[in-house]
Amino acid sequence: MPNGVEEGMEAEGGDHREISVAEFFEKNKHLLGFENAQKSIITVVKEAVDNSLDACEQDDILPEVHVIIDEYDDEKCRVEIRDNAIGLDRETIPKVFGKLLYGSKFHKLQQSRGQQGIGISASAMYAQLTTGEPVTVYSKQEGEPCHKFVVRIDTEKNEPEILEDEIIEPESDEFPGDKDYFFDHGTTIEMNIEAKYTRGHHSVRNYLKHTAIMNPYARVVLKEPDGNKIEYPRVSKELPEKPKEIKPHLHGVELGVVLRMVDNSNARTVSSFLQKEFTRVGRTSAEQVCEEAEIESGRRPNTLDKDEVEDLLKAAENVKLQSPPTDCLSPIGEDLMEKGLTKELNPEFTETITRKPTVYKGNPFQVEVGLAWGGDIEDEGSFEELRYANKVPLLYKKSACVTTKAIENVSWNRYNISQTGNRPQGPLYISIHIASVWVPFTSEGKEAVANYDPIRKEMKLALQEAGRKLGKYLKRKERREIQEKKKRQLTSYAKEMAPAIAALADEGNEAEMEDKIQQLVQNDYNPEQL
Amino acid sequence: MPNGVEEGMEAEGGDHREISVAEFFEKNKHLLGFENAQKSIITVVKEAVDNSLDACEQDDILPEVHVIIDEYDDEKCRVEIRDNAIGLDRETIPKVFGKLLYGSKFHKLQQSRGQQGIGISASAMYAQLTTGEPVTVYSKQEGEPCHKFVVRIDTEKNEPEILEDEIIEPESDEFPGDKDYFFDHGTTIEMNIEAKYTRGHHSVRNYLKHTAIMNPYARVVLKEPDGNKIEYPRVSKELPEKPKEIKPHLHGVELGVVLRMVDNSNARTVSSFLQKEFTRVGRTSAEQVCEEAEIESGRRPNTLDKDEVEDLLKAAENVKLQSPPTDCLSPIGEDLMEKGLTKELNPEFTETITRKPTVYKGNPFQVEVGLAWGGDIEDEGSFEELRYANKVPLLYKKSACVTTKAIENVSWNRYNISQTGNRPQGPLYISIHIASVWVPFTSEGKEAVANYDPIRKEMKLALQEAGRKLGKYLKRKERREIQEKKKRQLTSYAKEMAPAIAALADEGNEAEMEDKIQQLVQNDYNPEQL
Repeated sequence: MPNGVEEGMEAEGGDHREISVAEFFEKNKHLLGFENAQKSIITVVKEAVDNSLDACEQDDILPEVHVIIDEYDDEKCRVEIRDNAIGLDRETIPKVFGKLLYGSKFHKLQQSRGQQGIGISASAMYAQLTTGEPVTVYSKQEGEPCHKFVVRIDTEKNEPEILEDEIIEPESDEFPGDKDYFFDHGTTIEMNIEAKYTRGHHSVRNYLKHTAIMNPYARVVLKEPDGNKIEYPRVSKELPEKPKEIKPHLHGVELGVVLRMVDNSNARTVSSFLQKEFTRVGRTSAEQVCEEAEIESGRRPNTLDKDEVEDLLKAAENVKLQSPPTDCLSPIGEDLMEKGLTKELNPEFTETITRKPTVYKGNPFQVEVGLAWGGDIEDEGSFEELRYANKVPLLYKKSACVTTKAIENVSWNRYNISQTGNRPQGPLYISIHIASVWVPFTSEGKEAVANYDPIRKEMKLALQEAGRKLGKYLKRKERREIQEKKKRQLTSYAKEMAPAIAALADEGNEAEMEDKIQQLVQNDYNPEQL
Repeated sequence: MPNGVEEGMEAEGGDHREISVAEFFEKNKHLLGFENAQKSIITVVKEAVDNSLDACEQDDILPEVHVIIDEYDDEKCRVEIRDNAIGLDRETIPKVFGKLLYGSKFHKLQQSRGQQGIGISASAMYAQLTTGEPVTVYSKQEGEPCHKFVVRIDTEKNEPEILEDEIIEPESDEFPGDKDYFFDHGTTIEMNIEAKYTRGHHSVRNYLKHTAIMNPYARVVLKEPDGNKIEYPRVSKELPEKPKEIKPHLHGVELGVVLRMVDNSNARTVSSFLQKEFTRVGRTSAEQVCEEAEIESGRRPNTLDKDEVEDLLKAAENVKLQSPPTDCLSPIGEDLMEKGLTKELNPEFTETITRKPTVYKGNPFQVEVGLAWGGDIEDEGSFEELRYANKVPLLYKKSACVTTKAIENVSWNRYNISQTGNRPQGPLYISIHIASVWVPFTSEGKEAVANYDPIRKEMKLALQEAGRKLGKYLKRKERREIQEKKKRQLTSYAKEMAPAIAALADEGNEAEMEDKIQQLVQNDYNPEQL
């Protein structure tokens, strides 16, 4: 018997069992942003507001989002988020809020705030875990009745359990109740959670302020526990272009995924399979790929074995294909970004850059950068960073985020901006936005973006471009200030200069006199040299 | 009609669908450690070796683990990991390797390397995604036939798909085939993955070396792609005390979890429910909790409503309960840790500290620290860090890890160790181990431990304790070196001193003479003062 084996040992199998994804994330709730009472309330608001904005944009509705927070007990809050989106149909409601890994965005290659189908149901799970309370959802579609659901999650099964399911009258006391607003369509979620409502950088208020900057076409209203009401007004009635769904690109897709696509496709030939299931593959490129792979293009796709599919993918690498289309992206754009920064920060100078779309690992993405300087922005020593992914503010894990690395890669002192180490100093806000069909977050909590080379490079280029403009502005400003100073000096020396100028005037040489004064103002002339 | 609504919009519900947890992690494979070809091979080896060591210890088997890696194509490797554990029963095999969130450790409060039921099946998923190949598993229990399974994951369902299921003869060509070892019981997994086999800090070799240090009772053999064979020998036949499973503690359990326990319990009274389901609750404390909560202790648990359960939990906070038992933990211990450090690093000085167990958020944990200095350890400027969680080496995300924060919290220069910033310098290895029933990792990839106050505090205390010892050693060493230096000086001045000593000798005053010499050696005497 081998070393150390005791008799009567049992097989390992006995204790094995399935773990529901809800159990998994309940125990690992810190991975989703539910680390503590302060952060959890931001996470809940974030997940709900993200969903609301996504839903509004999806149907070209100018978003109207209300966040109402009440403290009802020690470290317990009632949180309500209401939107004017299109509303959910009756069958969908319980699953959206009562089942993890359920949603409409995961399987689409299209830019959206949510991408996982976890956020809002995990918030409901957190509510249930910390206060024992189910969530209440109202949802109404235009011209339809309003559905009220009270739902909890059966954590062991990851399935919703419906406690109430009724139709209510929008005009009744229950809806909108004591609310000072009313929408003809939209969704409202109410939940009770363990929470600590705070101010400062890590706060619901700051989260919504950052949201307002990047979504200036939304109207967001926050009612704080002390009754204080803050409105982030809409400053633009223009919605960004709606992103379109795209197919995967042959360069950047994984073998295992293609094997599955081959099995599921109803295309009749390999050629039509390639054209139908992938973006940027026309008849000619499809034939080229097949030829390069030495595979008959007219074969049925499901007759391909693993090696042949691998050959196809390798062959595709040698065939020139256009980059994926970028209408799957919806950047905010330079104008709107400037409007957002201006309305919330009121700076003296703003520069915004939207880069052209590009691709990482087959995924289209696009970077936008805004710099805001001076004005109401106070010089607190270091700059402030506004990080966004698909228009969603990122408040945590700054040091792990690609945005921070990109900022540190720029030589700011080239642009007349002083640096401490490799970080710029002064009354400066740096806003960086990555829009992508799939943002590579470093965790489910979506707090930081992975430091991928192509992404960091794009960010650096955008920062440099905006930095140059800010640098020019600061240079001009500095020159103006020097001139102003000289003008003041000139005035104070006026008496001494008066005779010389008078002499020129006496000579009737007014042109020369004015030149002299102009020279004094512009150049390094010392008035005493006159 | 409200602002911006277009006609003919459709409900949001249409596109919603379920996302399988396998699809989720396939798309988010970077969260599990499958970021790139270099890291992925380490992750695969890590997950398999962790499972092997857990399985061996579970049944008091001295672990024997073989890792065999072959390159079979450009950036493609065949990886095989074999252990001498107890083996899996036939029914369990396909699910362990072909289904995510399936395992024996998640639902237990007991220290183990694995805790999520994701690692090894995610490795199989990664294999399938990158090479299209299923995994092959051999598992044999003592006195039973050897089962061979070829399994793939149906990603859309997260269920195993069995391609082969047969019994093979251990003596046949197929098993052990061209292998130079044979076990009577154990499990072997073989998979083909996209991989880049490298050397250096982030490598399979370094991972196994670190593993060997913390698991000196294991024998680990690595065969590298170039045929090079490295053995990490067993230096102890003593297994650490096996951890025991515990029940949750009333201080630190969440309301939602207790509500579920109330529903599932077959206890007849609230009092017996508290005693049965929680650790450290005896009859007296159970009655006390009920009394404090003003709840009749003889009631049936399932008659309790949410508010009453909440009252019970609040009441429990005011009742003194013993800390959870700590036999759920299995630290490696000071002796074994020293053996591990010594065999792999061969330092001139080693100090190891195992702290007493303590508790964070209701979870028992224990910290161990080892310092190794000099000898074969080269002074590369900065120290080297060995980070462990439940005996598993952590190679990535150092800067985000509580261990790094703890090291930076110690004033190393107090212990005769020079610092750059707040990091110690010199020929130094710092090994830190946290053992816990639930390690709070910052991601599923289990790469860094969250910076929780009680954990950091324990680590700091352990580092200080070991640091003091190292400091004393360095002080003694320095003193000895100064003395040696003086002795040498003394010798070189011997001629000059000779007459003075000779005079004393002439006087026959040998005692005084020896004193003189001793003084010279020990004190700050300058030989010229003689």
